[in-house]
Amino acid sequence: MDRVAIIGVSMTQFGVREGSWIRDLLSEAAMDCIETTGIVPKNIDHVYVSNMASGEFEGQTGIMNALVHDIGAIPAYTARIDQTSASGGAGIYAAWQSIASGQSDMTLLVGGEKMTHTSTSMATEIISTLTHPVEYKHGVTLPSFAGLIAQLYLHKYNASRESLAKVAVKNHKNGVDNPHAHFRKEVDIEAVLNSPIVADPLRLYDFCPITDGSAALMFCSESRAKKITQDYVVITGIGGATDTHVVHERREPTTLDAVVNSSNKAYEMANKTPNDIDVAELHDMFTILEILQSEDLGFFNKGEGWKAVEQGVTDIDGELPINTSGGLKSKGHPLGASGVAQVHELYHQLMGTAGKRQVDAKTGLACNIGGFGNCAITTILESI
Amino acid sequence: MDRVAIIGVSMTQFGVREGSWIRDLLSEAAMDCIETTGIVPKNIDHVYVSNMASGEFEGQTGIMNALVHDIGAIPAYTARIDQTSASGGAGIYAAWQSIASGQSDMTLLVGGEKMTHTSTSMATEIISTLTHPVEYKHGVTLPSFAGLIAQLYLHKYNASRESLAKVAVKNHKNGVDNPHAHFRKEVDIEAVLNSPIVADPLRLYDFCPITDGSAALMFCSESRAKKITQDYVVITGIGGATDTHVVHERREPTTLDAVVNSSNKAYEMANKTPNDIDVAELHDMFTILEILQSEDLGFFNKGEGWKAVEQGVTDIDGELPINTSGGLKSKGHPLGASGVAQVHELYHQLMGTAGKRQVDAKTGLACNIGGFGNCAITTILESI
Repeated sequence: MDRVAIIGVSMTQFGVREGSWIRDLLSEAAMDCIETTGIVPKNIDHVYVSNMASGEFEGQTGIMNALVHDIGAIPAYTARIDQTSASGGAGIYAAWQSIASGQSDMTLLVGGEKMTHTSTSMATEIISTLTHPVEYKHGVTLPSFAGLIAQLYLHKYNASRESLAKVAVKNHKNGVDNPHAHFRKEVDIEAVLNSPIVADPLRLYDFCPITDGSAALMFCSESRAKKITQDYVVITGIGGATDTHVVHERREPTTLDAVVNSSNKAYEMANKTPNDIDVAELHDMFTILEILQSEDLGFFNKGEGWKAVEQGVTDIDGELPINTSGGLKSKGHPLGASGVAQVHELYHQLMGTAGKRQVDAKTGLACNIGGFGNCAITTILESI
Repeated sequence: MDRVAIIGVSMTQFGVREGSWIRDLLSEAAMDCIETTGIVPKNIDHVYVSNMASGEFEGQTGIMNALVHDIGAIPAYTARIDQTSASGGAGIYAAWQSIASGQSDMTLLVGGEKMTHTSTSMATEIISTLTHPVEYKHGVTLPSFAGLIAQLYLHKYNASRESLAKVAVKNHKNGVDNPHAHFRKEVDIEAVLNSPIVADPLRLYDFCPITDGSAALMFCSESRAKKITQDYVVITGIGGATDTHVVHERREPTTLDAVVNSSNKAYEMANKTPNDIDVAELHDMFTILEILQSEDLGFFNKGEGWKAVEQGVTDIDGELPINTSGGLKSKGHPLGASGVAQVHELYHQLMGTAGKRQVDAKTGLACNIGGFGNCAITTILESI
């Protein structure tokens, strides 16, 4: 089978992008990706936009039609893909399918979200509507879930609070070398442990920020890619899965079954095991989530992910570097952009163009999750 | 190539569904489709939800994850597909690709929108945000575009005002026999011509209503369909395209280029011409739109669609019946559901199960449009 290739990537500066609106951010990333790849906009067949809530954040919908117009890609087909905070991963899946099904010869995916113009409480309220009403109407938001499940994890596996803080410390350190990151400053364990409590035991520095930004990827078949460039990576595995929409119905709250199931599909398709993964971008919306995912993806045994962090296994110079980009924690989490930006990082790691963040990697894995693991999409990429 | 089949369909009552919310409507259609097809929810691989704006209408997002939970389909992958008023068509395209790319063996598509709990002005405002800000911020809504372009069409092609009214009369007549339709009453030409002016020359009865409802389709490969049932239709052509996002930049405002381009793709893929189409469901959000589409799909020459309506060619007993379901005009237009409900009607027409609305048809075409033709998706279905 002709594999699906990514022939170029781009991302905007993540951060507080005052004066830019969602349409500006999407166009900026799209035009950069078009310029990088040299693809003529008129030759793009499908354009997918990963975005959760431009209507709620900005009172603007139809942003995918606007984007196609703005970048000169009419009459390309377009649709917006929403899978809450995993909209980027869902967009990757849609773009992959458009190529694999033969409907598109060249597909542009652009993910983005504009969030910082609203108050933190309003942004939290918009995000909360992605959970079950029985949860958010009683005040159980995603951060409070993170606190509850972190508490359970620490208790159940006798894990150290410091290991959670270490995730933040590690990802901030990596982010310093990422010019696109929202935060480019190191924090130490004391700073995390002394930051204000948000949801006990988690504190402010255990959470990713609210961020504006956009990222883009260009997809085509490998046979077509070969005619265009030497610089591409291939997607060899991809899969998505859901878990209960109410977290209290989970069989085991410290296991994200959607991550388990989506990664099993991706591993099977790529004919890989967790041991084959050289570098990974995980969805560290909260520090606890990176540890849970590192276990549910099969990198470490259940209840031992925290030890791997403490031992430096997931450091940039460790055995399995996780979130070399800085992760959502320091890079920022513009919902629809995050899954796309994960693959942006893996592309550069596999191509050997990650600059100061470069690690030795031939196979990378991205895991993007919606809600508190209500849905997950896992993508495996390989260099050629 | 193994073609993509639709093995079962369902739709809820369209209308004012007081007391039901978007989640209720989606679940109702989904469960009906599951029951009709006998597919066990756990055997569904992908679930797509076509919906434009549940966050704006209801303050509820994540509805696709909720649906998968509610119907017992966990761990099925899911995403929400938005292409404004063409979200249903875009969902069909996503579902088609999921099967054609081999990622899913069984895909459920559910389209729906809950709108009537808001005021008409609020609903119009939410819908208006799908157009370019330069338009809606200056008060140019979709209904006013319809008025402007109807005026131009009547003038340019010396068409009769009565032909527009006749579209409403025809579709209301068809809707009487559709038990799922929002309105099941005939109107006569005088009633249309004497209804209140909305956007000159168009009057209230030239417009579809604001409606709640949901519809669902079950997709699998034809080879799998054959093992399950004798009752299926195949999608032999599908294509989507965009046009300028600002209507005043169109080369010729009475031609919907997105319809032309999307249908050309679908015809080519199906190896069909407009002459091969036996029955069609068009996007008659406004009466003028049905006439424009009937020309841009190649059924009639440009400027002659109005004559076909006057001559009864598109009547249910005419040469090319259009909107046997009653169309958006009498069936109603719950944004995300409409494109799905179009194919619901064609399935029944091709299967010979359309009851009093039955026509003689082996090949059907659905055209779902977003905005004022900002995007269009055309689907061609055939009986086996």
